[in-house]
Order: sequence, then structure tokens, then C-alpha cells
Amino acid sequence: MTGRPAVVLLSGGLDSATVTALARAQGFEVHALTMLYGQRHAIEGEAAKRVGQALGVTAHVFQHIDLRAFGGSALTDDIAVPKSSPDAGPSQGIPVTYVPARNTILLSFALAYAETIHACDVFIGVNAVDYSGYPDCRPAFIAAFEHLANVATKAGVEGHRFTLHAPLIDLTKAQIIQQGLELGVDFSLTHSCYDPSPDGLACGSCESCNIRRHGFNEANVADPTRYAPAQPY
Amino acid sequence: MTGRPAVVLLSGGLDSATVTALARAQGFEVHALTMLYGQRHAIEGEAAKRVGQALGVTAHVFQHIDLRAFGGSALTDDIAVPKSSPDAGPSQGIPVTYVPARNTILLSFALAYAETIHACDVFIGVNAVDYSGYPDCRPAFIAAFEHLANVATKAGVEGHRFTLHAPLIDLTKAQIIQQGLELGVDFSLTHSCYDPSPDGLACGSCESCNIRRHGFNEANVADPTRYAPAQPY
Repeated sequence: MTGRPAVVLLSGGLDSATVTALARAQGFEVHALTMLYGQRHAIEGEAAKRVGQALGVTAHVFQHIDLRAFGGSALTDDIAVPKSSPDAGPSQGIPVTYVPARNTILLSFALAYAETIHACDVFIGVNAVDYSGYPDCRPAFIAAFEHLANVATKAGVEGHRFTLHAPLIDLTKAQIIQQGLELGVDFSLTHSCYDPSPDGLACGSCESCNIRRHGFNEANVADPTRYAPAQPY
Repeated sequence: MTGRPAVVLLSGGLDSATVTALARAQGFEVHALTMLYGQRHAIEGEAAKRVGQALGVTAHVFQHIDLRAFGGSALTDDIAVPKSSPDAGPSQGIPVTYVPARNTILLSFALAYAETIHACDVFIGVNAVDYSGYPDCRPAFIAAFEHLANVATKAGVEGHRFTLHAPLIDLTKAQIIQQGLELGVDFSLTHSCYDPSPDGLACGSCESCNIRRHGFNEANVADPTRYAPAQPY
């Protein structure tokens, strides 16, 4: 039996892997979309491919876009990715790893893909708990984009209703990990680090590594991440 | 004297040239953004460059994106561009030249560019009179995107206010031409045709050519467009 089609933004990270498994568990036929946006870690593309294959997606489109033409973020520009002690709390304010309008761009491509394959459901793994400093990870952003999708598209005009699913938005990283494990996600295939070594090992000290490591600790689950030998920070 | 920065989506067509001139006349320092999206007429890029230079833009960024990966439109896919008699009225319903989520994607890039250069104003030359069949040319779409921009971005969160300007939305093509001429736009530099010849001549029989030709007629202005020799349609 084939379910209704849905587009799932799949970055290859822990969150989007869990979202993909959730969409599959809800009976959707998953059309994965991986956006590679000129960030340092093109290694994410490989992780996304592995995760998509492991979770049995129906189709997988990769889009390369060049956000470096605009600059303005540590993830696309020559600004250093900040490092901190593994025990540091979350940073305050909007971090330098924030990419201007990133989720708006990712969702606009997901919307184009969805409209093309006549899907009315789009999934994104944003999270407002660990990423409270990112304006485009908040519930107000999700609601605004869902409204936009319903006026922007042929499907919306013709009376179909787009739903933008952000099922992780209120979960802690530990809860996301628990949910992923229950759904059979193999987190060793995922990649979270903002600043990996050339052979793909996680740095262990960027904000994304810290949040991930705390999540495994809190969930009381062995962390399958392969870390590079410790560097001074 | 330098004005406030604004991002203007500049396709190289008649409408976006007029919008660029309008933004300049309102005192904005124009940062032009040309999105080349895998459509057949890469010739638009050249037109956009000429227009930007003639109108004295401060900066001009070109972004290549591949909407052909999704398909679904006569402008990005292998669907034939429809031709009609020059006297035919506008088509009914949503045309096959509609590109799924196109303006959402263009505006999301414009928003990223604006946020990076600390601009709070974005201009787009959409028009609801001639393009009433395109969902993403309507006032409701513009309002929804402006709202999204104000929740999606660092600037919005920090209390700056994004304004999305669509100054042509209620104008007829003739009125747009009149306005452009008053502002000194050289329309011979612009390009509108959906299906130009390899050397850049307009086909004269696609919807875009028809709307443009009617506009010059109605405005009682000589049409500077270079048309290819007439083809049977």
C-alpha cells in the first residue's frame, strides 16, 4: 500500500532523521529533499543519503544553492564556528551560526517540490528548545510559513490545504533521541557537527556537538558519534 | 548622498526595470538580485545586467538555482510554451507557464540578501492585473510574505520592520510603461519573451509577448522590442 506523498527536509542530522522516520510511521510516502547550501560540511550530503536509504524514502532530491554569495553566517562564510566547553549551556541571543533566512529558503524549495508532486504535506525538523536563538525555528515562523503556502500555490488556490509539520518543535534533544530510537533510527548514520574534520569526524566542541552529546547523556543512551581526537578550546 | 539600502528583484523584464527605477527615485540604494532558475531563456541574465547598469544599481548579485530538478512548468520543463494570436485575451485559470512556488523562492533569497546587508526593504515587480492566474502575484501573497519576513529574521525579532514593496501590483501594463518612461527606463534593454530565438529575438506570440505588445499599444508608445520574423501559430 502506498501512502499520501509528503516532502521531508532531510539534512542528515539527528532531528531530520527522526522526522523522516515519523513521517514514514504516519503512513506518508516520503519524498526527501536535501538542501546543500555552501556550508563547510558538504559531508552532510553523504549523511542525508545514508539516512534516506536506511529509512526507505521513495525519492530523494538534492539541491545545491549558494548562500555564500550573500555571506553573513559562520556556517556559510569565513567566520569561525564558536567552540566551548562540553559543559557550557546554550548561547544567548542569535548565534553567529544563524544563516539569514535559511529555513525560509529551505521551505520555499520544499513547497515547490510538494506542489510539483501534488503533495499537501511538508515536514521540517526545527526545534525551538535547543535553537531558541534562531528566529526561524519558532512556532510563529512555522505558522506564518504554513499560511503563506496556502496563498502562494496553485494547490492552495484550488482548495487543497497545505500542512507544515514540525513535530519536534517542543521536544528536548533527549526526547527526540528516544522517539527516533523507538522508530528504529540508526543515529550512527547521522551527522550534526558544524565543523567536522576532513574525514567526517565530529569536532565535539561546537554548539551542535554539545547539544547532541547532552541529548544522548540525558536520554541515557550510548552516543554513537565518532569524535575527532580532543582539541584545545 | 547615499540612501537606505533596498534589495530589488531584477529579472531583466519590463516590470522589474520599472521597479528598479522607482526604488532609485524613492532614494533607495539598490542592491539588485537576479535569480536564474533553469528556465529556457538564460538570455534574461544579460538583459538584467544591462538594465542594472543603465539604472545605476549599487550592487548586483546573480543566483543560479535549478528548479528543473522539480519540473512542473513550461518555463522550467519540457512542456511547450503556449502561443496564441496577438489579439487573444489573457488566458483563464492558472497557466502552464506558472512555476511552482516561484515567487516564494525568489523572495526568500531576496530576504536572505536583505538581512545580510541590513536592508529592511525588498521590492518585487509582481502584477495582479496581467498575471491574475498566478497565485503568487496576488496582494494576499505579498501580505503573507511580508508577515513571514517579520517573524523569520533576526531583524524582525530585534524590532526592525521589513517592508515588501510591490508597487506595480494594481497597474496595467500600459501604466507600468508610462511610469517607466517618466523615470527614464530604456525598455529596449529589457526582455519579456518566454520563448526567444537563440539570438535573443522575442517570439511575438507567447503570453508575455502579447501582454507586452498590448501594453505599448495601449500606452501609445512605440514598441522597441526586436521580434523574430513571424512564425505560424
